Amino acid sequence: MIDKKHLDYITSIVGEENIKSDKAHLIAFCYDATRTRFEPDAVVFPRHEQDVSDILKYCNEHQIIIVPRGAGSGFTGGALPASGGIILSLERHMNKLLEIDMENMVGVVQPGLINMQFQKAVEEVGLFYPPDPASEEYSTLGGNVSENAGGMRAAKYGITKDYVMALRAVLPNGDIIVAGKRTIKDVAGYNTAGILIASEGTLAIITEITLKLIPKPKFKQTYMGVFPSVDSAMTAVFKSLAAGANPVAMEFLDALVIKALRQKFPQVSLPEHAGGILVGDVDASSEAEIDSQLQTLKEAFEAFGATEFIIAKDEEESKKLWFARRNASPATMIYGTKKLNEDISVPRSKLPVALDGIYKIGEKYGFQVPCFGHAGDGNIHVNVMVKDKNNEKEMEDGHKAIEEIFQYVVDLGGTLSGEHGIGTSKAPFMHIAFTEAEMNLFRSIKKAFDPNNILNPFKMGL
Amino acid sequence: MIDKKHLDYITSIVGEENIKSDKAHLIAFCYDATRTRFEPDAVVFPRHEQDVSDILKYCNEHQIIIVPRGAGSGFTGGALPASGGIILSLERHMNKLLEIDMENMVGVVQPGLINMQFQKAVEEVGLFYPPDPASEEYSTLGGNVSENAGGMRAAKYGITKDYVMALRAVLPNGDIIVAGKRTIKDVAGYNTAGILIASEGTLAIITEITLKLIPKPKFKQTYMGVFPSVDSAMTAVFKSLAAGANPVAMEFLDALVIKALRQKFPQVSLPEHAGGILVGDVDASSEAEIDSQLQTLKEAFEAFGATEFIIAKDEEESKKLWFARRNASPATMIYGTKKLNEDISVPRSKLPVALDGIYKIGEKYGFQVPCFGHAGDGNIHVNVMVKDKNNEKEMEDGHKAIEEIFQYVVDLGGTLSGEHGIGTSKAPFMHIAFTEAEMNLFRSIKKAFDPNNILNPFKMGL
Repeated sequence: MIDKKHLDYITSIVGEENIKSDKAHLIAFCYDATRTRFEPDAVVFPRHEQDVSDILKYCNEHQIIIVPRGAGSGFTGGALPASGGIILSLERHMNKLLEIDMENMVGVVQPGLINMQFQKAVEEVGLFYPPDPASEEYSTLGGNVSENAGGMRAAKYGITKDYVMALRAVLPNGDIIVAGKRTIKDVAGYNTAGILIASEGTLAIITEITLKLIPKPKFKQTYMGVFPSVDSAMTAVFKSLAAGANPVAMEFLDALVIKALRQKFPQVSLPEHAGGILVGDVDASSEAEIDSQLQTLKEAFEAFGATEFIIAKDEEESKKLWFARRNASPATMIYGTKKLNEDISVPRSKLPVALDGIYKIGEKYGFQVPCFGHAGDGNIHVNVMVKDKNNEKEMEDGHKAIEEIFQYVVDLGGTLSGEHGIGTSKAPFMHIAFTEAEMNLFRSIKKAFDPNNILNPFKMGL
Repeated sequence: MIDKKHLDYITSIVGEENIKSDKAHLIAFCYDATRTRFEPDAVVFPRHEQDVSDILKYCNEHQIIIVPRGAGSGFTGGALPASGGIILSLERHMNKLLEIDMENMVGVVQPGLINMQFQKAVEEVGLFYPPDPASEEYSTLGGNVSENAGGMRAAKYGITKDYVMALRAVLPNGDIIVAGKRTIKDVAGYNTAGILIASEGTLAIITEITLKLIPKPKFKQTYMGVFPSVDSAMTAVFKSLAAGANPVAMEFLDALVIKALRQKFPQVSLPEHAGGILVGDVDASSEAEIDSQLQTLKEAFEAFGATEFIIAKDEEESKKLWFARRNASPATMIYGTKKLNEDISVPRSKLPVALDGIYKIGEKYGFQVPCFGHAGDGNIHVNVMVKDKNNEKEMEDGHKAIEEIFQYVVDLGGTLSGEHGIGTSKAPFMHIAFTEAEMNLFRSIKKAFDPNNILNPFKMGL
C-alpha cells in the first residue's frame, strides 16, 4: 500500500476530484479484457500534460509504480496494475481532438480520445484514418499507439505505427519530450516515436499524438469468396495479393467457424459445403478501379478453387456478407465454455501450413480450434476451445496446446502477437520468440527510459 | 593509433586479405560526400555476420572505436572516423541479394547491396522498391537504412523506414539480434528495428535487411506545371495533395534555379516568365486512373495560378521534362564557388512561408539562395551560394545564414534534416531542434546499446 503522504502530495497536484482510492473506483479500474483483476492503490485522472509530468517526477523520486490506462480494453493485461501502484487514467480529461489540419492531412489528439470518435470526425471533412481495431468503438488512441493496434484494414493500409507522425510524452523523470514532427521526412535524432509505439506504457506516458491522415476513398464494395477447404482459401490469400489485388480487408472464416455460424445464426445463408470463406472490401478513387480490383480477386480466387465469388450489390447486401465475420467470435462458443484466444501472425505464404499445423496440435490435445481473422495480413485469431473450464486437466492441456502453437508459429517465421501485445498474459512465452540477447537489449532499453522501473513494471517479460 | 596487437587479433578473425592499414586504403576510406577527411587506423572487410560479431566483441572489450561504412556517399559525415578507429566496410563481402520472396512480396539483402541493383532485381520479377535517394546508383541499402534515406518517390510511397520489416544486427557487445519479422503485424517486444533505422550506425551494425516490396505499378506518366511565382507553386503543392492528388513525385524548381538552368543548359526550353515549376510522375494500375490523377493535378495547379500544365506524350518527352530537375544541382553553381547545401523539411502547408523566409535570410546576408527539391513531401534542398569560398568573412556569414535558416524552419514545425541525417556536420545545430531533455534521452538510448561508446561515437551531437 502507498503511504497516505504520497497520495496527499498527488492530491495537491490534481485536486481532490481527480484522485480516487475508494473501493468502487479500485474495482472499476482493476480489470481489462483478460478478465484478470488487480486492484490499484489509487486512480488518478491527470488534467493535462503538466499534471502527468508533476506526478511522474514525484513518483520517480519516491519509487511509486504508475500504470497508464486508456479504456482498459486490452487483451493482454497491459493496463493492469499487476504489481500494484497508481492507475493514471487518461480517458477522463485528456481525451480531446485538438486539431484536424486539412492542409497537411494530419490530426492531433490527446491519448484518451476514442478511436471511432476520431475516425468519424476526420471522415466528416473528407479525410480517413485507416487503423480500425475490433475495439474501435471504445478503445483509445493512446492505447492503440501503446499496443500498436491493427485491424481489418491493415491488409491495404497498415497499422497504427504507419500513421504516427509525432508524439509528445512524459518520461518517468518528469521530462516532457517531443518525438517526431508534422513532416513526411525527418531524420534528425533517434526515432524515439518508433520505440514508444508498441511499448505498452512501459517507457513513457504519451500525452499527445500527431496522426497522418489520407483522403477518404470515394468508392467501396464488399466481396466474398467461398472455398472448398481452408487450404485453398489460405492459398488464395497470398496468391491473389501477389497477383496485384489490394483489398482493404481480406478476412477469413474456417470450416469450424462456418459450421458454428450456421448453427447459431440460422438466418445467415452460408453454403453448407464451404470449407473456408474470405470476405472483405475493396476501395478506390474511381469505379473503374473498383471493377479492376474485383476482377483481379475473382480470377485469383477461382484459380485456387473458389466455388463462388459474390459481390455485394448494395449496402444491405454488404452488411449481410459481413454479418458472418462480425459474429464469428461469439459463434465459436458452441464449442466450449472457455476460449483460449491468441492472435498469432505469420508471413502470408505460411498461412496454409500454419493452419494445418494448428489444427493438428488441437487434435493432439483433443481440442477443436476454430480460426478466423485478418488473413490478408497473415494475422489469425486462434481459439483453443476448452469444453469444461472447471476441469483443471483440460485447462492445463489448453495452455500446453497454446504454448505448442506459439512454438510452431515462431518456427514458421511468425510472431506471438499480431495485435494484442504481450503485457502479462503472453509474458511467459517471450522465451519462445526472443533470445536472451534480445531480452537483455529490451531490458537495457527499458532502463534507459525508466531507470527506477516505476512505469508499468515487469510487463512484457522484462 | 591502435596497438598492433589489436590489429593482429582482428587479422586472425578476418584473414590478412580483409584488413588494410596502408596509406592508400586509409585515404580511400577517409572521405564522404561532405568532402571532410578523417583517416581511420585501419579498414576491415568482414566476410559475414560472425566476423562482425567477433570484431565487435573484441573491440568492445578493448574500447576500440568502430565506424561502419557503406558506400561513403553520405552528406553529413555519418561514415567518417572523426574520432579515429577502425572502418568496418560492408560493401566488399556483405553485399548480396539473399532472397526475393514473391509470395510475401519481401526482399532480403545484406547491407552492402547497392540500392539500384536491388530496385532492378525486384522490378525484373514485377515487384517494386520505392525508396529512391538521389544516390541510388551507388549508395548501399545498409546506409539507406542507417540514414533513413528518402527520395523523390516519398511523396506517394514514403521513405526507407516504411519498407523495413526486419533487421539482423550485431550489438557492440557482439550479440546478434533479430528485430522484426516477415509479417505485416508484429507487436511482440520493443520495436528495436524502429530505433535502429536512422541511428546512423551508432547503436548496432546492421547485417541483414528484410524489405517490404509492392507490385510494380503498370502505368506512369510525367507532368509539369509552370507557375508565375514560387509562392503560387508552393501553394499548389499542398492544395493539390489535399484535393486528392497522389503523385509519385512532385519536385520543385524556384526562379533562381530556372534562371540558372536556362543559362547553363540553353537547350532546355523552360519558359522565361516561370517563377516556379513543379514536375513529377503519376503512376497507377490502370490508364483511367492515370487520367484521373492528371486531371486532379491540372485543376488544382490552374486554380492556384499555373500558366501551363504539360503532360509528356512519350518517354522522350518525359526525359525532357525531367532534365531540368535532374540538372538543378550543377546549374546552381553559376551563383558561386561554394554551395552550402541543407535539406530542411517542413509540413507542406508551410512551404510558401518557409521559402519566403529563407530568401529573406539570404538577402540579409547578401546571398542568393536557389532552392529546389521534393516539394511533394515538404523536403527542400536549400543552397546558400558563397561567391568566393576563400573569403573567410563570406564563409562565416554563410554559416550564420544556415544557422538562422535552421532556427526559422524549426520554428515553423520543420526539421534540420529530411534525408541527410545529422552525423558530424549538423551536430552543432541539434540544440535548435532538441531540448536538453530530448538530448539526454538520446544519450541514454545510445548508452543502452553501446555502454562503452565504441560504435561511431560522438555523432549526432551525442
